[in-house]
Amino acid sequence: MSAENTAMFTDRYELTMVSAALRDGTAHRSCTFEVFARRLPDGRRFGVVAGTGRVIDALAGFRFGDEQLRALADSVDADTLDWLRDYRFGGSIDGYREGELFFPGSPILSVRSTFAEAVLLETLVLSVLNHDSAIASAAARMVTAAGNRPIIEMGSRRTHESAAVASARAAYLAGMASTSNLEATRRYGVPGAGTSAHSFTLAHTGPDGPDERAAFAAQVDALGVGTTLLVDTYDITQGVINAIEVAGTGLGGVRIDSGDLGVLARQVRAQLDDLGAHDTRIVVSGDLDEYAIAALRAEPVDAYGVGTSLVTGSGAPTAGMVYKLVEVDGIGVAKRSSHKESRGGAKAAARSARSTGTIVEEIIYPAGGAVPDTGGLATTDLQIPLVRDGEPVDGLPTLTEGRDHLADALVSLPWEGLGLSRGEPAIPTRFALP
Amino acid sequence: MSAENTAMFTDRYELTMVSAALRDGTAHRSCTFEVFARRLPDGRRFGVVAGTGRVIDALAGFRFGDEQLRALADSVDADTLDWLRDYRFGGSIDGYREGELFFPGSPILSVRSTFAEAVLLETLVLSVLNHDSAIASAAARMVTAAGNRPIIEMGSRRTHESAAVASARAAYLAGMASTSNLEATRRYGVPGAGTSAHSFTLAHTGPDGPDERAAFAAQVDALGVGTTLLVDTYDITQGVINAIEVAGTGLGGVRIDSGDLGVLARQVRAQLDDLGAHDTRIVVSGDLDEYAIAALRAEPVDAYGVGTSLVTGSGAPTAGMVYKLVEVDGIGVAKRSSHKESRGGAKAAARSARSTGTIVEEIIYPAGGAVPDTGGLATTDLQIPLVRDGEPVDGLPTLTEGRDHLADALVSLPWEGLGLSRGEPAIPTRFALP
Repeated sequence: MSAENTAMFTDRYELTMVSAALRDGTAHRSCTFEVFARRLPDGRRFGVVAGTGRVIDALAGFRFGDEQLRALADSVDADTLDWLRDYRFGGSIDGYREGELFFPGSPILSVRSTFAEAVLLETLVLSVLNHDSAIASAAARMVTAAGNRPIIEMGSRRTHESAAVASARAAYLAGMASTSNLEATRRYGVPGAGTSAHSFTLAHTGPDGPDERAAFAAQVDALGVGTTLLVDTYDITQGVINAIEVAGTGLGGVRIDSGDLGVLARQVRAQLDDLGAHDTRIVVSGDLDEYAIAALRAEPVDAYGVGTSLVTGSGAPTAGMVYKLVEVDGIGVAKRSSHKESRGGAKAAARSARSTGTIVEEIIYPAGGAVPDTGGLATTDLQIPLVRDGEPVDGLPTLTEGRDHLADALVSLPWEGLGLSRGEPAIPTRFALP
Repeated sequence: MSAENTAMFTDRYELTMVSAALRDGTAHRSCTFEVFARRLPDGRRFGVVAGTGRVIDALAGFRFGDEQLRALADSVDADTLDWLRDYRFGGSIDGYREGELFFPGSPILSVRSTFAEAVLLETLVLSVLNHDSAIASAAARMVTAAGNRPIIEMGSRRTHESAAVASARAAYLAGMASTSNLEATRRYGVPGAGTSAHSFTLAHTGPDGPDERAAFAAQVDALGVGTTLLVDTYDITQGVINAIEVAGTGLGGVRIDSGDLGVLARQVRAQLDDLGAHDTRIVVSGDLDEYAIAALRAEPVDAYGVGTSLVTGSGAPTAGMVYKLVEVDGIGVAKRSSHKESRGGAKAAARSARSTGTIVEEIIYPAGGAVPDTGGLATTDLQIPLVRDGEPVDGLPTLTEGRDHLADALVSLPWEGLGLSRGEPAIPTRFALP
């Protein structure tokens, strides 16, 4: 497999820094960079780490070949181009696994290498983690709101075509059931879903006017009676009648994409039951977010389709993570001007929990040190090894394992942590640092 | 050049619709699909069309090869796979040029082909246009707020790594001066910018502590005195002293990335002037959006760097465009249930303007009809031919031409149209339809 080239998903200043650092030797100093979010999006109670697997995949394609070097010839000097030609990340990366919860200050990723090797990865690492974690964090709230009902991710058209693929992956990690996005199914194995749009019904219009029954018949002929028919192109009540007449009471489902979804779900459920279609499922879609999903909890809805709100992070389209140099040749370093203070020194993280499993505190402490006292509460180390000597470690968690991990992690939150309303982080972060 | 394969940036339901439509012949009916936004993001006064060029580029890569067909074998039947193998879009596309303003209902793109050929493009077309137009629409407000001062786009790290490239392109279309994103420079020729981050200064920490002067000296050595030094890692006043001592009064610029940027810009300007560095420019960055840019209008700022707010569309990360079937074999069609009414029939659009050039009204009328009466005001047709028989037409506007077009279009807005505050669309849309 030839990996996609990812080297140019980089900010120009990383190359100019490498250029300057090669001249005075700083390039070769041993450094630790850490990724963390200073805060959660306003009112959010937890974040979900997503994208780690994509970061590791992207490392393999971070190479400067002839095509890339030609494009950079105007930007940096010949020595830097030579160095870039040989570039292979050779350091180590530890981090939170995908599907792990995170809180303000959690050291989500720690990159250890020379200055030049590690600084080059800043933009790529942040692009992936900021995007994917924003989507997964929003998705986890929607999954929580939906309870046991499945959610179909169908937001591709509302975001950049490649971001759509990553969004579908992050949504699946967060517990959504399936995606409309073909490439997410191909590349990541996310289960696919989707049957028809209004255009299909409208395309069956003839000289005599609309012919919804012809559209339904064609769909059932192609996809079987287990398919889901979209019943709200014209009149929903008539649409349901047409659907059952055409497909029979064994019809898999009907979808409603507009109107007051709660009222319509009740009406359609009653109508389906009257027609004898007791097992025909009701799928609702149309501008759903976590609040709208929660509001439908008492209604006879069998599945949700979500789009815009998912791919835009439901108001928080980026996770606000930064990539900061924290240690140089064993010396802790930190920016000291104004409001953006960082805490110097490489860090580790543990999470304490009661015997019931409910988590209590995120504890950030110096890397290599002992876990601080927790008054007897058990703790779990949060970082795992991801990359050693530039190569992914064996047995990294799969996407499905990350999905399972998050499902367990959500259960570990204090009860108020799953609230959809605005609140504080579900657990405090303790910085047990010098 | 081998185009990127774009066929899988598609929702599954488009394939299932094609499958069903092939069986009953609907696949081959002559159709028109239109792209439009029902409304602008809340309070916005205009939108900016962006992504059209990327849509046309992506068409060339919309092919189902063995790799794609293998992945789809579980989803659709053999006849559909055969049809997909031969798929080439063979229809025509007209649309608003990139850099054109748009308003609610503007028919931004009209796709004419068979049902099956055109329905397949829905997701890809919308992903590109919704993303790029959201970014360009936000960027145009920032450019307006900045007046004649250049803006450097530096938001790559806050969005998906591929969306970052498209964002840089859209920002340049909207009038930003340059980008930090290397791939946007390589692929689209957007001017590149960027010098150094705090990590570079921090990396020059030794056993005796920080050494900002060593960092500055290394940067000037590599990049020349015309470079921009980042002066807010430790103490800004000392940073400016160090910068001028190291680089001399010919230093190109200093960047401030934190704190109260207005107060700091004044202080630093006075300090630079005192030191004799009258031509050293001040670049400010750090959580800037159009409002913060406008608030700095009276301060001695020479350039802005914007990131998060740009790539997230400054509160409106997607443009809300839809792709609707409006005509089948010459018959106008429209969804008729609930609140999502569409207007059937293929449409054209013109914009009227006073003799001063100030625009008055967006007029949507039946395609092929005459432009409705405007009381003597001159009108401009808004759609241009983009694709004929599946191939891009010759002489399509370049990115730079789109950029120039938008600069002119912004001048044509009524004076209140450039307001940053929440308001109504700058001009009304008149639907002169049957």
